[in-house]
Amino acid sequence: MQKGKASIKFDEEPVIMGAASIVGEKEGEGPLKSCFDRVEPDPMYGQDSWEAAESEFQRQTALKCLEKSGLKESDIRYLFAGDLLGQIVATSFGVQDLEIPVFGLYGACSTMGEAIMLASMTVNAGYADRVMALASSHFASAERQFRFPLAYGNQRPLSTTWTVTGCGSVIVGKDGKESPSAQEEIYAKVTGATAGKIVDMQSRDSMNMGAAMAMAAVDTILQNFRDYEVDQTYYDKIITGDLGSVGQNILFDFMDKAGHDVKGIHMDCGMTIFDSAVQDTHSGGSGCGCSAVTLCGYILPKLRSGEWKRVLFVPTGALLSQISFNEGQNVPGIAHAVMLEHIGA
Amino acid sequence: MQKGKASIKFDEEPVIMGAASIVGEKEGEGPLKSCFDRVEPDPMYGQDSWEAAESEFQRQTALKCLEKSGLKESDIRYLFAGDLLGQIVATSFGVQDLEIPVFGLYGACSTMGEAIMLASMTVNAGYADRVMALASSHFASAERQFRFPLAYGNQRPLSTTWTVTGCGSVIVGKDGKESPSAQEEIYAKVTGATAGKIVDMQSRDSMNMGAAMAMAAVDTILQNFRDYEVDQTYYDKIITGDLGSVGQNILFDFMDKAGHDVKGIHMDCGMTIFDSAVQDTHSGGSGCGCSAVTLCGYILPKLRSGEWKRVLFVPTGALLSQISFNEGQNVPGIAHAVMLEHIGA
Repeated sequence: MQKGKASIKFDEEPVIMGAASIVGEKEGEGPLKSCFDRVEPDPMYGQDSWEAAESEFQRQTALKCLEKSGLKESDIRYLFAGDLLGQIVATSFGVQDLEIPVFGLYGACSTMGEAIMLASMTVNAGYADRVMALASSHFASAERQFRFPLAYGNQRPLSTTWTVTGCGSVIVGKDGKESPSAQEEIYAKVTGATAGKIVDMQSRDSMNMGAAMAMAAVDTILQNFRDYEVDQTYYDKIITGDLGSVGQNILFDFMDKAGHDVKGIHMDCGMTIFDSAVQDTHSGGSGCGCSAVTLCGYILPKLRSGEWKRVLFVPTGALLSQISFNEGQNVPGIAHAVMLEHIGA
Repeated sequence: MQKGKASIKFDEEPVIMGAASIVGEKEGEGPLKSCFDRVEPDPMYGQDSWEAAESEFQRQTALKCLEKSGLKESDIRYLFAGDLLGQIVATSFGVQDLEIPVFGLYGACSTMGEAIMLASMTVNAGYADRVMALASSHFASAERQFRFPLAYGNQRPLSTTWTVTGCGSVIVGKDGKESPSAQEEIYAKVTGATAGKIVDMQSRDSMNMGAAMAMAAVDTILQNFRDYEVDQTYYDKIITGDLGSVGQNILFDFMDKAGHDVKGIHMDCGMTIFDSAVQDTHSGGSGCGCSAVTLCGYILPKLRSGEWKRVLFVPTGALLSQISFNEGQNVPGIAHAVMLEHIGA
């Protein structure tokens, strides 16, 4: 059902019935280390290249997600997936063995939001009983794609973020009402979603992605408030993807100006996954994988337990490529929001 | 409604109520030259780079599509869009001025099929009254992204295809039954669609994309046949995106082996948009823009007039990046199929 200008309300309330996350060693040393299904110590994951390693993170996470849910590949009708690499090759090579029809997505680090929104739209409309949504990133493949050779050992400004190595995967399915036993396994229901538009703050600093994305997050959160006629008190948490500490300050400023003080309920996945003071990650974590693994490992369990009743999950993406940046283009941002609720709420 | 293993039947039958195409000079010298809304003689389209030029093709095509349909930006609820460039930057910079919430897609040259399928799913489910789907490519930005510097003047094997410069855009909306006058403007209805899975033929030749994609087209077409319990006689035309003459032969071989002789009704957009003998385009045209502009300029008008009653439109994509190719990876393929019918059918 259409809600306001850019949102959808899911009358059938699809549920997140499965979730898995696999991360790299650095993520496994951070504050969320006990939350993930697996910490893979080998950054190559047994492969020959970082790109192939990222694909292996995807494949293993998808299989883990199926295993935890007691499902097999053929139980999943469609897959919504993406990553940060050019032509999303981590996805192309990561998910092909699953033999599930796939919709390739690119929303930069907002991809997990885009994927869950489209997955929920698909299930809510009855186009599928179960679909999978996943997103990944890898520190080394992202550095090669967007920045400098690792061996060059460049200095990183304090506004930079550290790309998370990892993949998060969820299974979105029809509500579990008919099967009470299944309900115990259900993490959360998806009650609505707000699609974001591209917001260009005229930022040109690829070493400060938080600033590039903050206004996109503000735009999508305010659109969600308007469409649902609610404010920040409606949510227990508003969780952005990877604004980092620099982007968070900008978010607070603009939300304050719009009359919404979200300081008490805001969380940023990038600021949660690493301990910047100890792990030298500067502004925080980033990458499609950052919000995806934090969702699967940390946010969904809190929704399942009921510690949080209602969360607005807003992964944020910075839209640039090596070429667009070298050609002097701006770095616009985008953010997609998904409304998640405790199943008993 | 789910149909078979991978297809969706649209009970509300969304319609393609608007379409526009803008192409480059070479496309404007080909057999379809009179079909396009505009032939832009400047490959830079007044911009400073080929990438920015491709963005301008997107922006101008979207605006032309709105103008032809008597609609404005705010009449479109969502946009499904993509291109071939890393991080789909042609799209990020092409559509941001429209201020429409956007779902970024990457399906290589199958993107227009993916976009129309998702757009139709969105409208059929009532999530939106009108959405736009578009895809673009640009010969020069694609050569820089995937192959050699143009100034290098490399020889091109006869199996290569020529990336189409252009953008095609459609508006998918609710059926026009309530407004008889609007029906005259409607191009076709979307009755169903089949999502493709990634098919790896172990091809490693980036100069022979037709071979890499042919089996993905076969797989999706046969899935469509099985899901709908039909065969090639159900369609007036089965239209692939950019297999080219080399890929077409492989398609015919495998379809014959599967017991389906499609030679009489098969058309390939890449073989239609250029006259290879005269235009030196070897196997044919390619790129997201190839199937998108051929759909908008050539296929949809024939569906509107009723010359063709029922078409299976199957854009085909080759999944590679410069990095994956340089690392010795295969070139897998993917194809998404959309079922288009004459509005009176």
